Amino acid sequence: MAQLSTQLKYYQQRIEKVLDSVLPPATINPAHLHEAMRYSVLGGGKRIRPLLVYATGEALGIDAHILDIPAAAVELIHVYSLIHDDLPAMDDDDLRHNKLTCHKAFDEATAILAGDALQALSSYLLAHSPQLSIPARQRLHLIELLTMASGSRGMAGGQAIDLMSTGQSLSEPELENMHIHKTGALIRAAVQLAVVAAGETSSHRKEKLDHYAKCVGLAFQVRDDILDIESDTETLGKPQGADIALDKVTYPAIMGLQNAREKALHLYTEAITQLDAFGSEADNLRNIADFIVKRLK
Amino acid sequence: MAQLSTQLKYYQQRIEKVLDSVLPPATINPAHLHEAMRYSVLGGGKRIRPLLVYATGEALGIDAHILDIPAAAVELIHVYSLIHDDLPAMDDDDLRHNKLTCHKAFDEATAILAGDALQALSSYLLAHSPQLSIPARQRLHLIELLTMASGSRGMAGGQAIDLMSTGQSLSEPELENMHIHKTGALIRAAVQLAVVAAGETSSHRKEKLDHYAKCVGLAFQVRDDILDIESDTETLGKPQGADIALDKVTYPAIMGLQNAREKALHLYTEAITQLDAFGSEADNLRNIADFIVKRLK
Repeated sequence: MAQLSTQLKYYQQRIEKVLDSVLPPATINPAHLHEAMRYSVLGGGKRIRPLLVYATGEALGIDAHILDIPAAAVELIHVYSLIHDDLPAMDDDDLRHNKLTCHKAFDEATAILAGDALQALSSYLLAHSPQLSIPARQRLHLIELLTMASGSRGMAGGQAIDLMSTGQSLSEPELENMHIHKTGALIRAAVQLAVVAAGETSSHRKEKLDHYAKCVGLAFQVRDDILDIESDTETLGKPQGADIALDKVTYPAIMGLQNAREKALHLYTEAITQLDAFGSEADNLRNIADFIVKRLK
Repeated sequence: MAQLSTQLKYYQQRIEKVLDSVLPPATINPAHLHEAMRYSVLGGGKRIRPLLVYATGEALGIDAHILDIPAAAVELIHVYSLIHDDLPAMDDDDLRHNKLTCHKAFDEATAILAGDALQALSSYLLAHSPQLSIPARQRLHLIELLTMASGSRGMAGGQAIDLMSTGQSLSEPELENMHIHKTGALIRAAVQLAVVAAGETSSHRKEKLDHYAKCVGLAFQVRDDILDIESDTETLGKPQGADIALDKVTYPAIMGLQNAREKALHLYTEAITQLDAFGSEADNLRNIADFIVKRLK
């Protein structure tokens, strides 16, 4: 099993503190809603998207301090999407990260509103947080990237495609198109946020990092599909075989388990190759790719 | 019955065209989601918030062109909130503006995603639309205002308070606190967006306009509660008596119908008084206040 580097584990702790500090305290009214937001955001998840923000920043030589708010903003979007995806009208999941999903721990209405409020908080932080010491134009660019990646032509659109295609037979390109939107767009945005915050100007480096992000995003999904078959419920933190139970199209279902494993490895190699233009400063990006393809949950 | 002025009717047509142009075409994938977004946004509603944006801009002497995107952004937030509020887990409404609610015309999952995507589109437009020719700092201020007004300490928080208090007995201040968040915050934001887009510097005028917006926002809600009793389903475009059926606390229930009518009139007078510092350039703001308190639906 691939381990996260010490530095990436440090970033995991760092983003936990940042998220804790940007979320409204549960003591402030409406307390019930703020509790639900905090419950869903804090204390769970691999934080892949924030790790990508920090590791990309490292590769481009900028301080982690500049990246705290972009990293938090992308994670808030990710968590809101999980809350809504878990709702009975969507994937109807009871467990996430080994704890009850938001609508199970609270109720459906609170879960819908908690998701809505987290999305608003994400743009609010990018627009306003004094911690984010970059020029106004760059801030706007961050908001543009993240809202485009999460809207109807990004993540929300991907979830719509997923729901429409459940129970259908999909070709590999169709499945890929769904994932490029549903999870790929936000993972790509995570890397782009760091690129913009860093003020990176080399289009060669920007293209390489974007290509890396595309490969990592798709590899993440292929690995997810494999884990849905291979792993057990306790390790996954959500029910094993959930995709199959929901009649979802998966890579192993389309191409067989062995081919899916090879596809994940191929994407991993392609991701790593993109980082050839970088030295050891991109080691944490390499480590994330390694972790994503070899993780057990 | 109070009529909207010719100019306000023109603004209603104007915002319809703007909304049509900023929404993704239904021909673009995911078509089903884009259809749901367009279905919910276009062809219905009084457009009170956009009218407030345009009329405030008029009072401050700025061109309507600058206000198209802020007006669209606030309306997209309003519509997304209606879609989510109408869901079975929330108010469970089947009719809105004399047509089926989004989850009835499409399905629940699509309605959740359409709301999510409209929220993302709102911030995206403010961050990116080339039509909005104002400096980057002002754009950021618009996003800050609108996301704060719609988040957990604004509109989403108000809906959470509303759901928690259904079936409870509320005092008038508690009811007012709920409405200040649920509908008041966004109506206030509509006026503030125009103030910021206009680059208004006089804090006296800003305070007056903000006070006007607070009164108009609350008057709107009191009138809504009265109409829920007085009007019929066809005129309202949604079921008459829906608040009572949902066991919602209303102004007439707390203070009696006559006192609620007087409260609405009192708020109207207070709103109009705030405009004393303005001449005829604020006539459309006066007209909106008039319309809100005397409307039949």
